[in-house]
Amino acid sequence: MSGRPPAQAPPRPFFHSRWVQAPAHVRELGPDAGLPAGFRAAGVAAGIKASGNPDVGLLVCDAQAPVSAARFTSSGTPAAPVLLSLERCRLDSLRAVLVNSGCANAATGRRGLEDAAKTQGAAALAVGAQPAEVAVASTGGISHQLPVDALLKGILAARARLSGDGDRDFQRAIETTDAFEKRATLEVDLPSGSVRLSAQCKGAGMISPRFATMLCFVETDAAMAPDTADLLLGVCVKRSFDRASVDGQLSTNDTAILICSGASGVSIAPESDDELRFGEALDALLRQLAIMMVADGEGAGRIARVVVRGGHAESVEAAARAVANSPLVKAALHGGDPNWGRIVQAVGGALVETAPLAVDVAIEGVPVCSAGATIPYDGEAVERAVQAREVEYEIGLPGDGAETEVFFSDLSQDYVRVNADYTT
Amino acid sequence: MSGRPPAQAPPRPFFHSRWVQAPAHVRELGPDAGLPAGFRAAGVAAGIKASGNPDVGLLVCDAQAPVSAARFTSSGTPAAPVLLSLERCRLDSLRAVLVNSGCANAATGRRGLEDAAKTQGAAALAVGAQPAEVAVASTGGISHQLPVDALLKGILAARARLSGDGDRDFQRAIETTDAFEKRATLEVDLPSGSVRLSAQCKGAGMISPRFATMLCFVETDAAMAPDTADLLLGVCVKRSFDRASVDGQLSTNDTAILICSGASGVSIAPESDDELRFGEALDALLRQLAIMMVADGEGAGRIARVVVRGGHAESVEAAARAVANSPLVKAALHGGDPNWGRIVQAVGGALVETAPLAVDVAIEGVPVCSAGATIPYDGEAVERAVQAREVEYEIGLPGDGAETEVFFSDLSQDYVRVNADYTT
Repeated sequence: MSGRPPAQAPPRPFFHSRWVQAPAHVRELGPDAGLPAGFRAAGVAAGIKASGNPDVGLLVCDAQAPVSAARFTSSGTPAAPVLLSLERCRLDSLRAVLVNSGCANAATGRRGLEDAAKTQGAAALAVGAQPAEVAVASTGGISHQLPVDALLKGILAARARLSGDGDRDFQRAIETTDAFEKRATLEVDLPSGSVRLSAQCKGAGMISPRFATMLCFVETDAAMAPDTADLLLGVCVKRSFDRASVDGQLSTNDTAILICSGASGVSIAPESDDELRFGEALDALLRQLAIMMVADGEGAGRIARVVVRGGHAESVEAAARAVANSPLVKAALHGGDPNWGRIVQAVGGALVETAPLAVDVAIEGVPVCSAGATIPYDGEAVERAVQAREVEYEIGLPGDGAETEVFFSDLSQDYVRVNADYTT
Repeated sequence: MSGRPPAQAPPRPFFHSRWVQAPAHVRELGPDAGLPAGFRAAGVAAGIKASGNPDVGLLVCDAQAPVSAARFTSSGTPAAPVLLSLERCRLDSLRAVLVNSGCANAATGRRGLEDAAKTQGAAALAVGAQPAEVAVASTGGISHQLPVDALLKGILAARARLSGDGDRDFQRAIETTDAFEKRATLEVDLPSGSVRLSAQCKGAGMISPRFATMLCFVETDAAMAPDTADLLLGVCVKRSFDRASVDGQLSTNDTAILICSGASGVSIAPESDDELRFGEALDALLRQLAIMMVADGEGAGRIARVVVRGGHAESVEAAARAVANSPLVKAALHGGDPNWGRIVQAVGGALVETAPLAVDVAIEGVPVCSAGATIPYDGEAVERAVQAREVEYEIGLPGDGAETEVFFSDLSQDYVRVNADYTT
């Protein structure tokens, strides 16, 4: 975090990965489009980060009755803000989110919970909400107590700067080791009318394919019932952040929150075409953000998708994770080396006592291994393919009916440098 | 493998880790002591490795009726030599072992099995044994077919050079990315007399805490029943190679074989003091070899032991593996950074849905986290402690009665360099 330059502009256009289908009814608005109607945000530097970079973000929904949904890490050692938000918030009607970077407020015990509660109370007062309507989120180093005084000053400063185009500052305030911005504002054409959908997201390290895995805040001016918001967020998180791995490390602080202001006047009814179309837009948005998170994996130079098909959901999942988290596969990806023997090894290591397992492997559509054994293939074509910025591996296990995918980054010397130097 | 300088002399004395107790009745003999009575070995360069380094090793027991035991990888995609040895050898009465480096003969299908069988037959002929008495083992890159012709020439050349002090050459022939030798010859004083015990071992990458994880060949001139050999090898492997992790990657080729010539005339009866004392010696030998393997983890600069105690064996095991395999913990170890927040995070990530988990953490005996929360401690003392060559982490989970340990290496930029460059 310290000494890292501020995040750069993200790649344009926003939908740039071949692994995301941008729906025809979705239009990307520019980086200055601002938030959907009914939202204000701000980000300020409150001195929590030694670098002096922005570190306190505030997001407010001005609707009469906002509707929301949230997902949090399943870690056994969640940070204090996660516990507090889970236990003390009305997660279906959040009105505001207070976020800080520079300190995760994790492994901080009862004092950490009390400190998180203090900042929740202060933010509620500052934005005119009840504490239960304010979610709190933190990111940064684990094991330090939250600098509450700095955060209170940050809340006051942020309140004074809340605005409808504060999403860029808000984004900057939630970043840690991110090398580029991960945010977008979309216009979504639904049968019942147009709505806007925006998101700000942070995450580069400690990212694993097991829900949430980072901070992501999503705003829309569509109206919907709490159950609809919960369903849509849940399904889309499972297909995006849940399938992304930088280093297989489940975070203590993962949080994803969707808030709906309803300010567009367009209402999304359950099981309607509106719901389907809105879901497609949210799905594309979160998948592209998840892929950007992987591409921003600390030190990442190349990213990959592994698709595993077979007869057993558990085996397919275990094999996909094993490949995505194998340091040997990731180092080969980094080196632009086909080395698919390591893929076979990783699958075999994940599925013990199944020998001999009939594994098929294809790289960028070229079959290289069939039923566990090497087959003749065009070596030069495969070597060229793994030089690309995105590489796709397909793995076949016996049987059919189950399929999954994981997006992952390579393992570079820079990953080690970043994480050996990032001190407590 | 290619371009890497030949392995250097190992650290002396052989028993140098504080984590291994060298029993008082065990005496280390020098590197030139040779093999126990009844054994001959050789290692030659047969042109399998592009570097021209030795790559074919042959080990023979000249006893009338050798007794042996073996353990192999539990991978779902084991290499051909593992399958062949498991299915076609009398593992309790092996007389010889043929090993090659430079090619793992893994992911090679039916042809790989047939090639392994050819070399087994040739080795049997060369040493005057039956094929079922000859185990085969391979190590090197996965996915290439075995160069049988080179191996046959190697067998002939090795046969001509078999000798009682051929263990050094044999050792060199089984190495791949090893930076230093991992072998020893010990004299063990038992109540019934003195015996010798020697071992040659290779392993530096693709090493995981799930039995075997490398090649290790153990010879003794003690006599014992097959059940005794199997029991002793099984128990000692569980306490050594089973507890070592370089990168959490279970290999396709892991093999550990113990052969007893009985040439000393000292017989080890079941449940005798001889068995106890011999077991202590074998345990110390394999534990020290396992720790050397971790210390030789590709690019490793610093090694660690994590000890986890708690009430549930499965949780304790999952937590220990998660810490040992966390790239974030390993990078911090490399950087000499206490960063114990990553230990809490790794434990929480391994034990999902248990929040809030009361985790205790101590570094080199200094408690830093109690019941999941940071506590005051001498930061300078801890920072000094993590600069040492060996670092110890202790983790407490709720309850008691279960305990485990894992030895692991750090994650360095060199690990990435070695594994991004090591081509198929």
